[in-house]
Amino acid sequence: MVKQKLQSLGITLPAVVPPVASYVPAKRSGSYVYVSGQLPMKDGQLMMKGPIAGGRSIDEAKAAMRQCFLNGLAAAGLVCDIDAIKSVVRLGVFVASAPGFTDQHLVANGASDTAKEIFGDAGVHSRAAVGVASLPLDASVELEILFEV
Amino acid sequence: MVKQKLQSLGITLPAVVPPVASYVPAKRSGSYVYVSGQLPMKDGQLMMKGPIAGGRSIDEAKAAMRQCFLNGLAAAGLVCDIDAIKSVVRLGVFVASAPGFTDQHLVANGASDTAKEIFGDAGVHSRAAVGVASLPLDASVELEILFEV
Amino acid sequence: MVKQKLQSLGITLPAVVPPVASYVPAKRSGSYVYVSGQLPMKDGQLMMKGPIAGGRSIDEAKAAMRQCFLNGLAAAGLVCDIDAIKSVVRLGVFVASAPGFTDQHLVANGASDTAKEIFGDAGVHSRAAVGVASLPLDASVELEILFEV
Repeated sequence: MVKQKLQSLGITLPAVVPPVASYVPAKRSGSYVYVSGQLPMKDGQLMMKGPIAGGRSIDEAKAAMRQCFLNGLAAAGLVCDIDAIKSVVRLGVFVASAPGFTDQHLVANGASDTAKEIFGDAGVHSRAAVGVASLPLDASVELEILFEV
Repeated sequence: MVKQKLQSLGITLPAVVPPVASYVPAKRSGSYVYVSGQLPMKDGQLMMKGPIAGGRSIDEAKAAMRQCFLNGLAAAGLVCDIDAIKSVVRLGVFVASAPGFTDQHLVANGASDTAKEIFGDAGVHSRAAVGVASLPLDASVELEILFEV
Repeated sequence: MVKQKLQSLGITLPAVVPPVASYVPAKRSGSYVYVSGQLPMKDGQLMMKGPIAGGRSIDEAKAAMRQCFLNGLAAAGLVCDIDAIKSVVRLGVFVASAPGFTDQHLVANGASDTAKEIFGDAGVHSRAAVGVASLPLDASVELEILFEV
């Protein structure tokens, strides 16, 4: 169902982004898949770097978040059949934030909207979105996902 | 039991604070309820805004954290009977912190103490408390909760 | 098996570091152990304090992370037999970061490598590593762990 939905949306999942360090992109435990923090890598490059400040585009940051979600779904595919995913349980959203930037929830919608677009009602999730000092490789955003299989 | 305890403590749970974005306040998965990051909303307003610095009141921040916990318990009530909650498993505590503020653990006690007050031994939990750059809507604190039902 | 492995590695688990606040070092829920955010306490003192900047030693930070993992494993031992641990599911890595520090993933390897060293393939985990503004007691790093028992 998920694969069909992706096809109907014209979405091709990215090749899995190898972790930048000594862990796995996704770990299965019982009926859960814990997806490691995903950066907005696309074609081997970060889509957005540096802390987000008021002057930067929220749309650009939302697009980066959408990419994180797609990368995370591809990562989940390493340890389960993505058609077997029952639910998106939780998103952990980290936004590198310059002082005074307080729209992390708007940025996070780039991932949340994508989850709902692909999974429908099962894609509606709990979420925490926070503004952090900085992220690995100077990425602007990072996304952790918990799927139920 | 929980409802009775709240009554005996003179606590009225707040109306559920609608999420500021496209997700749900709480998601049930198996015997767990994942509560989204709660801001210290009370009567439609944030109780405390801006990063916490040395000069600001820890008591004010603890009160904001207590409110986050109550908001989160109310959110859990959307997807389960709160009397069916068996345990508070984990709190994720985010404190917007000015440079040099390192008392996040004291602030977090505002939520931890409330969990124990309401749930007794079952309210004793694991916890991570960290100081972040900023939070959605310029809230001073945010709290994520994992309940076992 | 875990205890034997520790012995063969010459690792003595630290005495459990008491939490700096009103929560428990580890909470068991079903077949999971949620370990609270661990600071790099060794012999009652923090091994590393203050935000990490470009000029500071990554090796020192990795050693602090290793200590956090050992402290967390000791904490898990309060609520389960560590020989019964089946898997390291997830690490949550928080690195207090000065502006411009973006090597959180390298710091996090200090914990990840230790997990694999002790648990072998079962120690390979999912992970999120982020740079935060500050941490309790001015610790440079904090680590949350989810074990499956």
